[in-house]
Amino acid sequence: MYSVIVRDHVMIAHSFTGEVFGPAQRLHGATYVVDVEFKRPALDADGIVVDIGRAGDTLKRVLADFNYRNLDDLPAFKGRNTTTEFLARVIFDALVSAIGAGDLGPGAGAVEQIRVTLHESHVASASYDGRVSTS
Amino acid sequence: MYSVIVRDHVMIAHSFTGEVFGPAQRLHGATYVVDVEFKRPALDADGIVVDIGRAGDTLKRVLADFNYRNLDDLPAFKGRNTTTEFLARVIFDALVSAIGAGDLGPGAGAVEQIRVTLHESHVASASYDGRVSTS
Amino acid sequence: MYSVIVRDHVMIAHSFTGEVFGPAQRLHGATYVVDVEFKRPALDADGIVVDIGRAGDTLKRVLADFNYRNLDDLPAFKGRNTTTEFLARVIFDALVSAIGAGDLGPGAGAVEQIRVTLHESHVASASYDGRVSTS
Amino acid sequence: MYSVIVRDHVMIAHSFTGEVFGPAQRLHGATYVVDVEFKRPALDADGIVVDIGRAGDTLKRVLADFNYRNLDDLPAFKGRNTTTEFLARVIFDALVSAIGAGDLGPGAGAVEQIRVTLHESHVASASYDGRVSTS
Amino acid sequence: MYSVIVRDHVMIAHSFTGEVFGPAQRLHGATYVVDVEFKRPALDADGIVVDIGRAGDTLKRVLADFNYRNLDDLPAFKGRNTTTEFLARVIFDALVSAIGAGDLGPGAGAVEQIRVTLHESHVASASYDGRVSTS
Amino acid sequence: MYSVIVRDHVMIAHSFTGEVFGPAQRLHGATYVVDVEFKRPALDADGIVVDIGRAGDTLKRVLADFNYRNLDDLPAFKGRNTTTEFLARVIFDALVSAIGAGDLGPGAGAVEQIRVTLHESHVASASYDGRVSTS
Repeated sequence: MYSVIVRDHVMIAHSFTGEVFGPAQRLHGATYVVDVEFKRPALDADGIVVDIGRAGDTLKRVLADFNYRNLDDLPAFKGRNTTTEFLARVIFDALVSAIGAGDLGPGAGAVEQIRVTLHESHVASASYDGRVSTS
Repeated sequence: MYSVIVRDHVMIAHSFTGEVFGPAQRLHGATYVVDVEFKRPALDADGIVVDIGRAGDTLKRVLADFNYRNLDDLPAFKGRNTTTEFLARVIFDALVSAIGAGDLGPGAGAVEQIRVTLHESHVASASYDGRVSTS
Repeated sequence: MYSVIVRDHVMIAHSFTGEVFGPAQRLHGATYVVDVEFKRPALDADGIVVDIGRAGDTLKRVLADFNYRNLDDLPAFKGRNTTTEFLARVIFDALVSAIGAGDLGPGAGAVEQIRVTLHESHVASASYDGRVSTS
Repeated sequence: MYSVIVRDHVMIAHSFTGEVFGPAQRLHGATYVVDVEFKRPALDADGIVVDIGRAGDTLKRVLADFNYRNLDDLPAFKGRNTTTEFLARVIFDALVSAIGAGDLGPGAGAVEQIRVTLHESHVASASYDGRVSTS
Repeated sequence: MYSVIVRDHVMIAHSFTGEVFGPAQRLHGATYVVDVEFKRPALDADGIVVDIGRAGDTLKRVLADFNYRNLDDLPAFKGRNTTTEFLARVIFDALVSAIGAGDLGPGAGAVEQIRVTLHESHVASASYDGRVSTS
Repeated sequence: MYSVIVRDHVMIAHSFTGEVFGPAQRLHGATYVVDVEFKRPALDADGIVVDIGRAGDTLKRVLADFNYRNLDDLPAFKGRNTTTEFLARVIFDALVSAIGAGDLGPGAGAVEQIRVTLHESHVASASYDGRVSTS
């Protein structure tokens, strides 16, 4: 399996609901350094997995919806804890949609799997790894 | 698949038996920067894989058994080479036991897989990745 | 000159005032990975710059005042932009006070300089580097 | 599954053919920091996956074929785009051959899978992950 | 002293003249991950060293002159070895010019010192650290 | 001021004397990832600070005296705590001697300052930064 990984970051505020979160129930924030890995079993005719420039641009556009935001204010996240692992899935879903819409080019339809990892500090990160089903 | 990764470290002395180890047959030591990845297919009701605070505390407790020790002196490792890959498995087993004992909370029973990686320098690391079977 | 560097992190929310900040004028947040470097010209009788355990504990205590907080709500920061470079200075001042109060042990009085660096992402950081004057 | 990961690097020049590459169609270059992960289900009698010294030496020898070269001049790559993901596969194939030739020792025949990752910058990398079939 | 550090990268080809360079006398290439540190003794009225957005944009513009280029072909470098330390100075000079031209905003005139570091691999880097004299 | 930085590592065992060290009074060990920065005000005729190959070789030779050793057994360290900051100075002194002996080439005599940093984990490091006086 081949893969290409691109990195960007996003800076957000949010709070959590539930005793398990302790002080993180208060309004606080995070920088998430985001790694996205695109996987496919064979390279295209140009010898690539995806156009790395387009991959980076698409990731930046996806993150722009959250960047410099208080996630508690976004209707899409109403009643949800926007944990690191939850956000990894949100970004995964947005990238699958972007591939479906052709944003990564026609060849990106061959991408079979995507892994999204969010590093929230030098000691903690979370990820979502799933199959791309664009049908 | 979702995952959460926490990091800590441990500083130990040890020696190896076997010509393949060359100068590492002498008593020496290592800092292992330890990454533990907990994986499960779905998030719990709070939107998490495991309580990241409890995960970190549990890892620290597991590492405390070896920290600032000469592993050659520990009865548990009698007659074994405490290589980086061997220690990754030892930590894996201890974490599976901790989950079974409820140390990571009741929800942690849904964790299906754990990957333990020990970075021994900027150019070498080793890991053990296995399924959690608590039955 | 000798130095010892310890690392910890803090997760906060805040907003900025001023057109120069663009979208960062909105309420957002950051993880700051904080490196503190303590410098002195000679080692003490134990062969250390500062007790690294105490240094780490003191840094954690200093960061606890801001951790999981919305900095816009803290009276101490009223009317100030809590930029990365500004916060580096705030942490510097708190560490100088801690040394003066003996929190790092009597030997820490020999520390002449402290550099505080806050990494806000994989592509940006800021620091304050100053002399310790405890007189 | 156990694994051991070793790191080295290589510095090359090359150019790409195809509009998708934009300015990278010009002759330019890259440092690739290369991580190779060797995986096998059980440790050998010494408690290791592979002899980490031999693994590092073998990787260095494999990279020496490309190091400080203009890849456009190498007959082996005639008519191919030497993208990061393509080179990951080239290195994978060379390592499988090396195992077959006994370069990593007789025990290395138990290695079932190899993952080769090339980091081309702090924001982009690519990899090839495949099964070792030495039959 | 306050500082702000921004990071970007550039991918180039080049060759060196002189026996000391060994195999690096051949045409090869490098990725340079570039850190630029801007230093000034006091923050401006907004609480910043420089506008971090403008700093990043200026660095990207400076690097664009070399990015995806064979440095051997650039008239500006005729007869010079474009070593990592030499390039650190070239980027330093371009940033001083940019400050003089007002590209980083009027407040950037207070920047007293700039340090440019180029990481050429995980084991080697070089830098130039100098005073800004815009008179 | 120009500088070049090279990295290597060393794995040792040792113990400390003194209550301040707590559990580190027991025999334990460490991996030190070692960065050495060579500084001089002007480049030589080849456009370099030092021959980076020779610098790396010299560092490796200096570290070989300690590598895979129990520092408690080395006569040179009798009655001393081999703390991270102490070892930074030991390596500094060995490098100054090496320059004096011509190991880094005749041009290395122009090196004015050396900074040695030892990273003992992902959260702690120490360094010694001093002037080179070869007279």
